Amino acid sequence: MNATDKNLNKFLNETAEVDAGATQPFAKSRKIYVEGSRPDIRVPFREISLSDTPSAFGAEKNPPVVVYDTSGPYTDPDINIDIRNGLPALRAGWIAERNDTEQLDGPTSDFGKQRKEDPKLAEMRFNLTRTPLRAKPGMNVSQMHYARRGIITPEMEYIAIRENQRRENMSELLQTQHAGQHFGASIPQVITPEFVRDEVARGRAIIPANINHPEIEPMIIGRNFLVKINANIGNSALGSSISEEVEKMVWGTRWGGDTVMDLSTGKNIHETREWIIRNSPVPIGTVPIYQALEKVDGKAEDLTWEIFRDTLIEQAEQGVDYFTIHAGVRLAYIPMTAKRMTGIVSRGGSIMAKWCLAHHKESFLYEHFEDICQIMKQYDVSFSLGDGLRPGSIYDANDEAQFAELKTLGELTQIAWKHDVQCMIEGPGHVPMHLIKENMDLQLEHCGEAPFYTLGPLTTDIAPGYDHITSGIGAAMIGWYGCAMLCYVTPKEHLGLPDKEDVRVGIITYKIAAHAADLAKGHPGAQIRDNALSKARFEFRWEDQFNLGLDPEKAKEFHDETLPQEGAKQAHFCSMCGPHFCSMKITQDVRDYADKLGLDEKEALSKGMQEKAIEFVKKGSEVYQKV
Amino acid sequence: MNATDKNLNKFLNETAEVDAGATQPFAKSRKIYVEGSRPDIRVPFREISLSDTPSAFGAEKNPPVVVYDTSGPYTDPDINIDIRNGLPALRAGWIAERNDTEQLDGPTSDFGKQRKEDPKLAEMRFNLTRTPLRAKPGMNVSQMHYARRGIITPEMEYIAIRENQRRENMSELLQTQHAGQHFGASIPQVITPEFVRDEVARGRAIIPANINHPEIEPMIIGRNFLVKINANIGNSALGSSISEEVEKMVWGTRWGGDTVMDLSTGKNIHETREWIIRNSPVPIGTVPIYQALEKVDGKAEDLTWEIFRDTLIEQAEQGVDYFTIHAGVRLAYIPMTAKRMTGIVSRGGSIMAKWCLAHHKESFLYEHFEDICQIMKQYDVSFSLGDGLRPGSIYDANDEAQFAELKTLGELTQIAWKHDVQCMIEGPGHVPMHLIKENMDLQLEHCGEAPFYTLGPLTTDIAPGYDHITSGIGAAMIGWYGCAMLCYVTPKEHLGLPDKEDVRVGIITYKIAAHAADLAKGHPGAQIRDNALSKARFEFRWEDQFNLGLDPEKAKEFHDETLPQEGAKQAHFCSMCGPHFCSMKITQDVRDYADKLGLDEKEALSKGMQEKAIEFVKKGSEVYQKV
Repeated sequence: MNATDKNLNKFLNETAEVDAGATQPFAKSRKIYVEGSRPDIRVPFREISLSDTPSAFGAEKNPPVVVYDTSGPYTDPDINIDIRNGLPALRAGWIAERNDTEQLDGPTSDFGKQRKEDPKLAEMRFNLTRTPLRAKPGMNVSQMHYARRGIITPEMEYIAIRENQRRENMSELLQTQHAGQHFGASIPQVITPEFVRDEVARGRAIIPANINHPEIEPMIIGRNFLVKINANIGNSALGSSISEEVEKMVWGTRWGGDTVMDLSTGKNIHETREWIIRNSPVPIGTVPIYQALEKVDGKAEDLTWEIFRDTLIEQAEQGVDYFTIHAGVRLAYIPMTAKRMTGIVSRGGSIMAKWCLAHHKESFLYEHFEDICQIMKQYDVSFSLGDGLRPGSIYDANDEAQFAELKTLGELTQIAWKHDVQCMIEGPGHVPMHLIKENMDLQLEHCGEAPFYTLGPLTTDIAPGYDHITSGIGAAMIGWYGCAMLCYVTPKEHLGLPDKEDVRVGIITYKIAAHAADLAKGHPGAQIRDNALSKARFEFRWEDQFNLGLDPEKAKEFHDETLPQEGAKQAHFCSMCGPHFCSMKITQDVRDYADKLGLDEKEALSKGMQEKAIEFVKKGSEVYQKV
Repeated sequence: MNATDKNLNKFLNETAEVDAGATQPFAKSRKIYVEGSRPDIRVPFREISLSDTPSAFGAEKNPPVVVYDTSGPYTDPDINIDIRNGLPALRAGWIAERNDTEQLDGPTSDFGKQRKEDPKLAEMRFNLTRTPLRAKPGMNVSQMHYARRGIITPEMEYIAIRENQRRENMSELLQTQHAGQHFGASIPQVITPEFVRDEVARGRAIIPANINHPEIEPMIIGRNFLVKINANIGNSALGSSISEEVEKMVWGTRWGGDTVMDLSTGKNIHETREWIIRNSPVPIGTVPIYQALEKVDGKAEDLTWEIFRDTLIEQAEQGVDYFTIHAGVRLAYIPMTAKRMTGIVSRGGSIMAKWCLAHHKESFLYEHFEDICQIMKQYDVSFSLGDGLRPGSIYDANDEAQFAELKTLGELTQIAWKHDVQCMIEGPGHVPMHLIKENMDLQLEHCGEAPFYTLGPLTTDIAPGYDHITSGIGAAMIGWYGCAMLCYVTPKEHLGLPDKEDVRVGIITYKIAAHAADLAKGHPGAQIRDNALSKARFEFRWEDQFNLGLDPEKAKEFHDETLPQEGAKQAHFCSMCGPHFCSMKITQDVRDYADKLGLDEKEALSKGMQEKAIEFVKKGSEVYQKV
């Protein structure tokens, strides 16, 4: 038994017995499901129950808050998880009933066959009992294809329910929000299945949902929906095993990853990917050129279209939901990077640049783009058109090379759409704040409003160790401007491989950016959670404040460092200032004081007040009416 | 000997012997001084020396990078620090030669006298050998007063040198930068003493510099200068001793705090403050109402103008450089907060609200504002007009109460300026991204372009434990829009008292925000550090990359977790991807490959290239010319 096998077995044992830290529900949270038009559409949410408002603040019930939940069945105690079997194939029936796919006898890629037949891999291989699906000859199984033919798929209905976030139980107050400033088409108050279909049909949103990944809980990426985030995992030659990667995926979705990219470049990429996909409730993206390069022993110049094509089929038949393809790195653009501070920093971009120069030829990805589309539509793999020439430093931001490639990505988008293949566009990178909006505006202009998916951008280069923050700033801004998905950056960016804690911090930072963007866009219902948390904070409901936060465990831990006693969590003062100087306590005193004032006094008080203040005094008997 | 004395003695011993973590220079950094027009103007900088570019990348010398340095004499190994003596009084001569101050016999405030005469306090008292200064009768010692009379003070010249950041040694490349988008008056390429004077004269910038704080290294706050950050320290009834607060101040300036606010509310505020001021190389701000409230045992309604006035004089004679004064919380505005989610969250604001309601009277701070100005100008204390009605939640952002107060702060600014008293304006708080710019724009409009100084703002309420990040996003944006100083928020915000690690993380986050804003504004020279770091990154000069970062220690620690060997720091690949998949390595291969191409091949390659690419090929013989 080699080291990897030992790791795998160790992981399986651990998972069967413990692994509770990554799967147990958060405090006071339970998984709920909302049923759609048919019983097999069951959309999961996390319901956070809240305590009552203390009597000093008006003793009222606080309705539970229902939030979007990416964690899949892992946080549902009613579902028995065994990663050896993978997750339930909840979309299998939907795919089958469309009657446009055929069951293959097995993998059709050369590499897929080879790995399946290699007895040495038996012990580490996921025991998949079904064979891959593919579109029947001449058929197109993409969600875009259905959408354009007017078909509302179960996936679309599922997404409509999911995006609405169950606002019906919220009090009127909790729904109140600032108008928002949305730079795109307007977001409807209620997301309907028809709206989802229409956005997908016109290419403004994608539903990454490979027919060979029936385990996913469908989700959508588009700027008229909630802003999504991606978490990267993946081993490299220097670190991590299969088990660690699966654990990272579960961990990443627990904290809020909407999709996960497997960027593995080490050994056993094929087997690692299978384990990840079979156990992932979220769409999985990859960069197929990484594996293709492994197949030619790291020599970029030895890459061929045939090897790449085989890799696409191999991965499509495993169930990868979107492929990053750097087809915009054209031969003519490479010299444009010559005067850059940091050259080409995209791995895929540099591989293709090397190939183009070595062969003196146009990129085979660009030349074979229609062939690639033919493969994508047979499995419904979405494009994530890679920005191989993205800037790697502030100095290189928004330069000629970057925008030349962006225009090409726009041309390629039109070709993908001609084939009804779903498509999003990757973006930078390193960009100072004042140049961020230009990225978004040009992307919309050149790429026909296809969803934008950016890495950060980092707004300065000078903080290695804190690049989740340098990039979280840019991510929040570009999310507001209309970016549909934000690829997370961890504190280890530029320095090393992220561990679990780094993944958590990276994801929370990006959930903050995405949510800040949803608020700024005025996304319906986004503010409910802020309001509920702030109300809890004002009323000193400490546990509710923790539980409504993006990271309840960290919040509790920080609080308990200063005031660890259980009693302190009911305390009507804040650990920051102590009982004497707490403004919220004083605010409450103000209200109590005002309660005792006579009517005459209240009238006197109102003298000189502005219109709203006068109206307030007319209406009520308290300075602080309970809202 | 009580517990505090023990703490103090413990601290003194520790400082004399160790405390190296907070004071030793960063690796490869040394303190340098630039002399002005007279030998006693010696402006400190940190010079970071860099290694040579490896031969594979073209073997060249890299000039040292000189950066703004807030850490004071603590990081100068030539200066012997003894906190019992305090720092050298470097401004004493400048103040004396203006011949407009008089040496008092001792503190003139009742409270100051009382503390000085209390024998029980002897052991914890800082041994100050000089007595306070005050303006001679009828004189005004504010930097604004001098500026308006056309006088360029040594402080102004010092600041001009400091803001220029010593760019003369930088290669042409390192000075190149994006144009920037500055919403204010334009920033000159070279900051002259006359420019400093002019900005102070028109109130667009302030130099917090109490004549009783001669130890400071002068700095400026205004939107045509580098964006500054403030770090808060201060004990509360629940935690920390004098020694811890002094340590926090030293620690805070080490990481980049430009000013420090002492928000202490516990025992021995007076003595704690003296220790902090005497040892602080940066301006110190306070909120005098906190101490005034202590003097009336926490009963807001017992506050009087006399007690407050005595507190102002007490603190002014100790050397506090700016006072937060919540004079904009007027009686009529209080009911406007009635419908808020989180009422009044400013401690000072809630204290004044309680007083106003209890007495049914207009705020004594508002009514006595001219009296306050009279005190301020005798010591050159700057106003930081407090936003007592700032929003404490997204729900409450940009509401009537907030903007009513802002208009009043604008009126008060005009009064302060009538007295030639320096003045900045505090701002929120909790604001969704799309409402941030309105805050900046209205502040400029109502307050005559006086510098804005904001807390964050936090762009969402849902991430307790990560509010340095929710607020860092807003801080970067408002800094770009023109905010002059950003008050830091630590990860413990809303949850507990920050420890040293929290202070460090909070400061670094805010240095990122401030620097990102400087880049976006196109501040001359701001990009030098980004360029130098990115060049080091591209050339795999790992140590240089760490040392140029805002937190060299963290960067090194993160790197070493993955690749701890010393050799790895010379490795020509990145620990993130491993040697095989490193894009920078491949980029280098591309360049090497291109070097080998014949001339004909290069011409062929250039076919179809854009203008710049052709020009490049004409000019040079390499695809990657060394820049």
